[in-house]
Amino acid sequence: MNFTERLRASQNAQNSLVCVGLDPDPRKIPQFLHQNENPVAEFNRRIVESTHDLVCAYKMNLAFYEALGEKGWQALRATLALIPKSVITIADGKRGDIGNSSEMYARSILEDFNFDASTVHPYMGFDSLQPFARNAERGVFVLALTSNPGAKDFQYLKVQGKPLYEHVIRRVKKWNTAGNFGLVVGATRPAQLKTIRALALTLPILIPGIGAQGGDLRKAVRYGCDASGFLALLTAARSVLYASSGEDFADAARAAALSLRDEINVCREEYFV
Amino acid sequence: MNFTERLRASQNAQNSLVCVGLDPDPRKIPQFLHQNENPVAEFNRRIVESTHDLVCAYKMNLAFYEALGEKGWQALRATLALIPKSVITIADGKRGDIGNSSEMYARSILEDFNFDASTVHPYMGFDSLQPFARNAERGVFVLALTSNPGAKDFQYLKVQGKPLYEHVIRRVKKWNTAGNFGLVVGATRPAQLKTIRALALTLPILIPGIGAQGGDLRKAVRYGCDASGFLALLTAARSVLYASSGEDFADAARAAALSLRDEINVCREEYFV
Repeated sequence: MNFTERLRASQNAQNSLVCVGLDPDPRKIPQFLHQNENPVAEFNRRIVESTHDLVCAYKMNLAFYEALGEKGWQALRATLALIPKSVITIADGKRGDIGNSSEMYARSILEDFNFDASTVHPYMGFDSLQPFARNAERGVFVLALTSNPGAKDFQYLKVQGKPLYEHVIRRVKKWNTAGNFGLVVGATRPAQLKTIRALALTLPILIPGIGAQGGDLRKAVRYGCDASGFLALLTAARSVLYASSGEDFADAARAAALSLRDEINVCREEYFV
Repeated sequence: MNFTERLRASQNAQNSLVCVGLDPDPRKIPQFLHQNENPVAEFNRRIVESTHDLVCAYKMNLAFYEALGEKGWQALRATLALIPKSVITIADGKRGDIGNSSEMYARSILEDFNFDASTVHPYMGFDSLQPFARNAERGVFVLALTSNPGAKDFQYLKVQGKPLYEHVIRRVKKWNTAGNFGLVVGATRPAQLKTIRALALTLPILIPGIGAQGGDLRKAVRYGCDASGFLALLTAARSVLYASSGEDFADAARAAALSLRDEINVCREEYFV
């Protein structure tokens, strides 16, 4: 199975389009966890245990692990070992470098850590992304239109009458001969998400910005899914991870993930059945 | 002193525009080093000891360290500890993420590892770069026109009649209120380097692609320097690191760095005095 098929299978089996962003910030996790030798690993363990049946994917932003040094990489490895095979793992590293350097990043992410997919910057073009895409089972999500304010600096620049991000998408479609490319489109851009899905009918779309970043969930479902109600990865991090700052944080995370899953599934039934 | 002033001071004191890319590949370093507990740390130690008086900067591509896991981060830390303060250190990580994630990367690179400068992707715009630029003493090199084949995929797209990379440069100039922004321009693009320097008279330009990637050294000096013959960082990695694969590798690296420094200084005298 190529990555797109794997993602669809996971979303179908889990009955969920929820992707939880495992971006643990030591300053935000419950105080009592700091007794543990590796507080972030323990935090992740409990979040994964209490949510893994409710999600189709976990996305780890590598910045949060890199910032912790060796303890961070240990936590990342320990967390990955707990995630069931049926759930997709995404290394959100936004890498992109010349060929021999991207090879190194890809080796670390896809071989050493054995992630199912990665996120990449488009700016350096095809040879900078190819090492992440060589195995059709592994996905590569290319940044198209991001959720942050700075998206307006370059992504909307007009090239032959169309915004730059549309050129990125057209190029990604050409590269997607093996069925393992996808896009990143922020949930904070619903109108653009609609035109992007119309342009890229069959690509997985990773949609961060649900929850803390304020993206509109109903629109993200409606415009982000493919025609059969799949292939959108609706991603929330802070609103799930920090649903409670007390000892009940894992239960609160479960409740938040469950409500997100159900809210999404209600929308899917409304729009796609 | 802001970063631009620091770079100029270093280039002046060292009488060198050479930046050595410390991108150690365990498969390429001399065989006998594999007896050491951390072969890459030992390789770097001997390269730094034999070249530090000949360079103005070292650039570490983080991919090479990340690929080695914990040993890689140990090697990076050990290497940084050996580099004299007079020499600029650049974390070539090509990062770029939403604000709170870029904060994490910046904390790791600028606080934990204490690098003098970083490289970043422009695609996500200002808030994705700001955490790397907050301290005027620390530099941030924004990818403008890269040395790899994929540069043509997006960087040359025409926006209002000008290539995208020129828009990136104009934006960087606006952001550079504190004197710590720079650009990355591949040595494989001499004609474009000339127009870029004319656009960005006072920005540091990091110029990879000398040596193994085949960039034209004389043109890189002529077009990459500012009007006084400074602020180009002429970067070679493989041609210095692997000048010999024998026990004399550090001497051979010194000879390669020396010849590069002198060749550059001859050009500078010709063009700028």
